[in-house]
Amino acid sequence: MTKQQLFSEIVRKNSYLCIGLDSDIKKIPKFLLDFEDPIYEFNKRIIDATSDFCVAYKPNIAFYEASGTKGWESLRKTLEYIPQNCFTIADAKRGDIGNTSHLYARAFFDKSASGMSFDSVTVAPYMGKDSVEPFLEFPEKWVILLALTSNEGSKNFQFLQLQHGCQLFEEVLKTSSTWADDERLMYVVGATQAESLTKVRQIVPNHFLLIPGVGAQGGSLEEVSKLGMNSSCGLLVNSSRGIIYASSEKDFAERAAFESEKIQLEMKNYLALYL
Amino acid sequence: MTKQQLFSEIVRKNSYLCIGLDSDIKKIPKFLLDFEDPIYEFNKRIIDATSDFCVAYKPNIAFYEASGTKGWESLRKTLEYIPQNCFTIADAKRGDIGNTSHLYARAFFDKSASGMSFDSVTVAPYMGKDSVEPFLEFPEKWVILLALTSNEGSKNFQFLQLQHGCQLFEEVLKTSSTWADDERLMYVVGATQAESLTKVRQIVPNHFLLIPGVGAQGGSLEEVSKLGMNSSCGLLVNSSRGIIYASSEKDFAERAAFESEKIQLEMKNYLALYL
Repeated sequence: MTKQQLFSEIVRKNSYLCIGLDSDIKKIPKFLLDFEDPIYEFNKRIIDATSDFCVAYKPNIAFYEASGTKGWESLRKTLEYIPQNCFTIADAKRGDIGNTSHLYARAFFDKSASGMSFDSVTVAPYMGKDSVEPFLEFPEKWVILLALTSNEGSKNFQFLQLQHGCQLFEEVLKTSSTWADDERLMYVVGATQAESLTKVRQIVPNHFLLIPGVGAQGGSLEEVSKLGMNSSCGLLVNSSRGIIYASSEKDFAERAAFESEKIQLEMKNYLALYL
Repeated sequence: MTKQQLFSEIVRKNSYLCIGLDSDIKKIPKFLLDFEDPIYEFNKRIIDATSDFCVAYKPNIAFYEASGTKGWESLRKTLEYIPQNCFTIADAKRGDIGNTSHLYARAFFDKSASGMSFDSVTVAPYMGKDSVEPFLEFPEKWVILLALTSNEGSKNFQFLQLQHGCQLFEEVLKTSSTWADDERLMYVVGATQAESLTKVRQIVPNHFLLIPGVGAQGGSLEEVSKLGMNSSCGLLVNSSRGIIYASSEKDFAERAAFESEKIQLEMKNYLALYL
């Protein structure tokens, strides 16, 4: 999916919501356990109920990987089920030396190899340029690079002050934005880091940002929309637990629809205000 | 496996060789393609041929993940096949917010969840303490944290000079070595960074280091052994391509045995000299 196509979907749906499919066998409604593939069944119903209100789905790969081959099969089927007009994100936080990153890219982008072809994958920056480039070799696929994450541990290294003046996350943005433009590269910036969004936008005014941390982690949708939105919207705001686990009963899909519509309506306002 | 058990194996085998199972369907001998699971068949024969000369095996997870569910099944069977007295490393370079890292830990450490239980997993440091801790909650399992990698891109961020005096990789070592001791935590330090090994050893004198980059990437075994060895050896030096692809013909396993014995004999010398 191109940047223009993504923006068109945002305008059409009045939404920049990304739904995180952090689907956990221990948390899904009990009645689904009678199905052959409970995780796939759960995801299917969540997708059916919410796809009018969001523009992207982000399966969190750890949740599938933890169940071994069975989990990867649920993931493959889920990706297959997501409507074509939704942007798909493999939240995998991969990254390794060049020949290895190339294989991770094949795992998420090359259907003929792995059975899966996501639109994008999240990548960790620590190993530098040649660990990121192999993901950029796949046409029309996106890298979403970690810049500033939403967790407490982000303080350990990401905010370190460098000798030449900026902080590590700013250096990651500056350096990596020379590797690819805003048609191929996005950044993860946690919603819990809203006060840093202004700094982020000074360095990468045009790139899309994937914003986790609204909801369960405490970030404010209004604040990130106000500080982060650009003329192509430039935001994909993720919510996972607040939507997919809104209920653990038979009505879980309806409740997921309700919660995502609530966010979508709020987003509609912010698009009118800040776009 | 405990640190003491690992050291005992090193002394018993006179080796600190780790063999990287970067097993690629495009590179293994053609005659293996007639088997039901060619990658597993390749790994089995490599393991049979080399397990007297090495103390650890390191499947590079990307190589399995790139083949989807089929690849994960080859990985599971390979791990099952590795002899109990060999240390096993899931070279996965994972790391995410706490609840997600916990699931990655289950993927590699919890056999009841994923069918696999490695001794250790490689983890990326960028997301900080709470992204690493969930891996440390599994008793007798190890985290191998990226400090200084062997690739060109390591220069982008790992060597950045911080305001308070040290470089980023030194800060990663200093900070993370307060999270766990040398009985649970190792570090990745590329063999191509030998000149920095002295600095590394000043900060973490007692920790084991996993050293990739000898062989195909050009690092010197003698240099890293001289600069990096401590009183428990403290080194696992990895070779992948130079061993497993020493031949692409029917004699590949014999040639792998020959190449690994050659390294083991060199290591025997260094253990006599520097231990």
